[in-house]
Amino acid sequence: MNFKSDNEAPAHPAMIEAITQANEGYAAAYSEDSWSRDLDGRFSELFETDCRVLPIATGTAVNSIAIAELSPPWGAVMCHQLAHIHTSENGAPEFYSGGAKLVPLPGENGLLEADRLARAIDAAGRHGVHNVKPSVVSITQATECGTVYSPAAISAIAAITHERGLHLHMDGARFANAVTSLGCTPAEITWKAGVDVLSFGLTKSGALGAEAIVVFNHPEWIEGMERRRKRGGHLLSKMRYVSTQLLAMLDADLWLELGRQANARAAELARGIENSSNVSMAIYFDPFVANNFDPGAGD
Amino acid sequence: MNFKSDNEAPAHPAMIEAITQANEGYAAAYSEDSWSRDLDGRFSELFETDCRVLPIATGTAVNSIAIAELSPPWGAVMCHQLAHIHTSENGAPEFYSGGAKLVPLPGENGLLEADRLARAIDAAGRHGVHNVKPSVVSITQATECGTVYSPAAISAIAAITHERGLHLHMDGARFANAVTSLGCTPAEITWKAGVDVLSFGLTKSGALGAEAIVVFNHPEWIEGMERRRKRGGHLLSKMRYVSTQLLAMLDADLWLELGRQANARAAELARGIENSSNVSMAIYFDPFVANNFDPGAGD
Amino acid sequence: MNFKSDNEAPAHPAMIEAITQANEGYAAAYSEDSWSRDLDGRFSELFETDCRVLPIATGTAVNSIAIAELSPPWGAVMCHQLAHIHTSENGAPEFYSGGAKLVPLPGENGLLEADRLARAIDAAGRHGVHNVKPSVVSITQATECGTVYSPAAISAIAAITHERGLHLHMDGARFANAVTSLGCTPAEITWKAGVDVLSFGLTKSGALGAEAIVVFNHPEWIEGMERRRKRGGHLLSKMRYVSTQLLAMLDADLWLELGRQANARAAELARGIENSSNVSMAIYFDPFVANNFDPGAGD
Amino acid sequence: MNFKSDNEAPAHPAMIEAITQANEGYAAAYSEDSWSRDLDGRFSELFETDCRVLPIATGTAVNSIAIAELSPPWGAVMCHQLAHIHTSENGAPEFYSGGAKLVPLPGENGLLEADRLARAIDAAGRHGVHNVKPSVVSITQATECGTVYSPAAISAIAAITHERGLHLHMDGARFANAVTSLGCTPAEITWKAGVDVLSFGLTKSGALGAEAIVVFNHPEWIEGMERRRKRGGHLLSKMRYVSTQLLAMLDADLWLELGRQANARAAELARGIENSSNVSMAIYFDPFVANNFDPGAGD
Repeated sequence: MNFKSDNEAPAHPAMIEAITQANEGYAAAYSEDSWSRDLDGRFSELFETDCRVLPIATGTAVNSIAIAELSPPWGAVMCHQLAHIHTSENGAPEFYSGGAKLVPLPGENGLLEADRLARAIDAAGRHGVHNVKPSVVSITQATECGTVYSPAAISAIAAITHERGLHLHMDGARFANAVTSLGCTPAEITWKAGVDVLSFGLTKSGALGAEAIVVFNHPEWIEGMERRRKRGGHLLSKMRYVSTQLLAMLDADLWLELGRQANARAAELARGIENSSNVSMAIYFDPFVANNFDPGAGD
Repeated sequence: MNFKSDNEAPAHPAMIEAITQANEGYAAAYSEDSWSRDLDGRFSELFETDCRVLPIATGTAVNSIAIAELSPPWGAVMCHQLAHIHTSENGAPEFYSGGAKLVPLPGENGLLEADRLARAIDAAGRHGVHNVKPSVVSITQATECGTVYSPAAISAIAAITHERGLHLHMDGARFANAVTSLGCTPAEITWKAGVDVLSFGLTKSGALGAEAIVVFNHPEWIEGMERRRKRGGHLLSKMRYVSTQLLAMLDADLWLELGRQANARAAELARGIENSSNVSMAIYFDPFVANNFDPGAGD
Repeated sequence: MNFKSDNEAPAHPAMIEAITQANEGYAAAYSEDSWSRDLDGRFSELFETDCRVLPIATGTAVNSIAIAELSPPWGAVMCHQLAHIHTSENGAPEFYSGGAKLVPLPGENGLLEADRLARAIDAAGRHGVHNVKPSVVSITQATECGTVYSPAAISAIAAITHERGLHLHMDGARFANAVTSLGCTPAEITWKAGVDVLSFGLTKSGALGAEAIVVFNHPEWIEGMERRRKRGGHLLSKMRYVSTQLLAMLDADLWLELGRQANARAAELARGIENSSNVSMAIYFDPFVANNFDPGAGD
Repeated sequence: MNFKSDNEAPAHPAMIEAITQANEGYAAAYSEDSWSRDLDGRFSELFETDCRVLPIATGTAVNSIAIAELSPPWGAVMCHQLAHIHTSENGAPEFYSGGAKLVPLPGENGLLEADRLARAIDAAGRHGVHNVKPSVVSITQATECGTVYSPAAISAIAAITHERGLHLHMDGARFANAVTSLGCTPAEITWKAGVDVLSFGLTKSGALGAEAIVVFNHPEWIEGMERRRKRGGHLLSKMRYVSTQLLAMLDADLWLELGRQANARAAELARGIENSSNVSMAIYFDPFVANNFDPGAGD
């Protein structure tokens, strides 16, 4: 068993197959091919609502393009202090947004807490133009500690977010783990609970490199996201090879099956750890989880 | 025959094969895998000199990361007015560099002319801090018009570039076409002629999405390029799937064979055009070539 | 007579007086003082319409903050190839906008021509996401060559600009020269002719350092401009000393009197040049005028 | 007595006088005038070492330009969680640096603690390219809480900073208060203790708007700082009016006299508070001090 990262495992054979099948004949370039054009419809079915989808090859790009669209350059992005966007993306959200500030908040087990979030937002912007402007709340589902937000927890965070005029982003690098672990529908922990944009990650699930920005209820954000994708060098000329992976993951709910398998392996691992060591239990291990900038937080 | 773009053709079967073979067992993530680690050596052989290589999935990212490393945010990047970096990347070089200015220059058949370049550099920076600072010259090989720079032409441009303290970048989105059409070695039209950094494109040649930044003689640029790659969301967690394509293209000189085939098809097409129309001849057609911002240039 | 620049002359005595008078007692910081709060009203009177005013100390900042608010990072800013924003601000508009592209256009005597502008806008954006997006037209009044746009010329440019969904910015570093030379009202060459935002410069007229962004009909741009001003370090804690200069310039139409004097001196100078040399006549001389990047434009 | 801010008091009469005297005759523009050219010499005397000085009108610009030069866009800037650069500049350091990350650290009474700083730096960068790169330590002297660093405290911080390859910036918005309160020389709490760049603020002391970047031992940073100053719109065409204020503050040690007066008033105020309220004592009050984003830090 490899302890280090989902990123080191080989891709699922269905991904190779999908790419092989997509490699037939000419297809329109730059995401105008039929695979890419099918994404809106297929994801709308999955999420039981009209949504818009941008295929992209990496999670860092998906997160950063989404956040940059939701926050002005002078925005504050409220997130957990262990959030991948804060600790492990080398400032990509700052780069794409033109210098927004990530505001890391403490919280048990990697979870953002609604009350603390409300206080932080209210404190952060109270001096107007002298402060960055709270603009986005970003939560990770499942979190960097392997915990999950329940639909109710997300709704509480969304209420605080929207009441104050901010937008809610979900980093779903391990969205499959969350859905299968909660036994809920994708809709229940996204737009039904108030999520505006989801970074839907399928690379850790077993794709070679396939992620998607999924936008709920805000078609007006698409143009900016498409511009940022191109400008960031993420509009692949041959996007069909990414889109076909996304579609293949949805076929027969492969992504859910892989999510369940990953959870089972993690639980096994956790039981082993619990029995034998003083490492605190977590569903899985992210090599970067511990990179909390502030050594004083735990004092 | 598809007239629109190399980007619409299927990938070469050897690429699918390479990906399939790379999909065996665990491999280190984030470009630490053995395929990615082989790149420096394999490209150093090809170029007959020690060079450093960063695999990246798209040409826009390769160009922009390279240029951003070579130019400060207040830099001027001298290029042909038809250069892809200027007309067709939605401002990606500006984005990655933090706002450098691309200075488009006229020139017959898509070719930058040494004299005009020298005058432009000298004019551009003469008011010091009030002007952007000429920092990079970027040439496209083969050009957006399908023409090529001879080794001597590149040397002349490089001399002007280096004498004035600038760096020379080559956008080699169609590098294979140039090498095979000129019948020279890769070394002869790059570092031997004074090129500092090459964007080596293999996607148009038949990869699914595989390009490389190749750095000659400037290892001090690698750290910044690696940082920019990560920060731009282009450090794939499973980089092996890109690197294996690059290696497969080099195997048995597949990239050269594909370059020769492309040139042959283009020549055929050109003959057809010559016989039948008033379209000016070019080896191949870029749908964006004509996007010259300045309608007065041809007056 | 000093040939080099209006920037080298001492400030008008009324400016020193205004500062001295403003230096009485406590006053709210950060543009909340009574002088700064009077600006909207006083400029609204001058322009015969409700307008919003942001005092700022330099012309480069005024131009760049205005343009950054009107253009997305992937925008194209159409301007004359001799425009100060393009040739002499070291990329400040690119910096403030997050990397917008300035598209320099030729035109006789420093004047943008309506037809050529229309063709350039239409050409620039035709490949959608692959191109930067034409977003702003910026004209200089009086121009860098000392010529002026008539109200009708501005209206023609504004029509082309607005029909295509762009915004019209006027760099009025020498707005006083234009108003007095044309013998029109400030309204006639700004909002009445379709200008959306004016950079109103009074430093060259004789202030120590006092300029203003004047926004017509778009109060929704104020928040972003205020944020950019603060973030750029241009929200002076003691803004009263800038605002009092602006007010003193408006008192008894001092700015117009100074504009008339400058025009008279320039005309005298021009007559001298006409009689004695082959320098082409211009109302005044900008040391940076000649910094046209493209030496081929005049070939 | 005005409790709100040094920024609301009128400027010292000597400032008006200095401006009036500088307003004689023509003077070179853009910081080439004789007042501006005298700054290096005068500050070198004051600091008892060769130093380079850039006059700038605001503290936010001074801090941001300095930090941007010392940190790459992917840098981490370690600072106290109450640091003005973090809480009250609307993301200006992020803007100027191209997206660096400010890492706020706790510490008693607004003071950064050497041990905690060392641990934070070591933790922040340990995952290489996945993390932002610790590049700058910024301390405020006097701090936002009105406390001061002793020369020994600064030396300890500088040692940790330099051993790890970072640079040390001092935000001296209230440098005069610190020097007079400590009874030391300016040299002792800057370069002698290891400070690389000082933001020397004189606006709060009584200037209309006059600050300076003072660079010790790193002349190679000047070009970039000058470029950033121009590009940020902070190269005043008539810089003499800023530089003359700086010189007048140094004449007969006016800045020190004003620093002593401010400290005396603050001490008086502090005694009043101590006797009458539960407000925690601080030498002076910054309206933005309390803007700590993280409400959990004090839990």
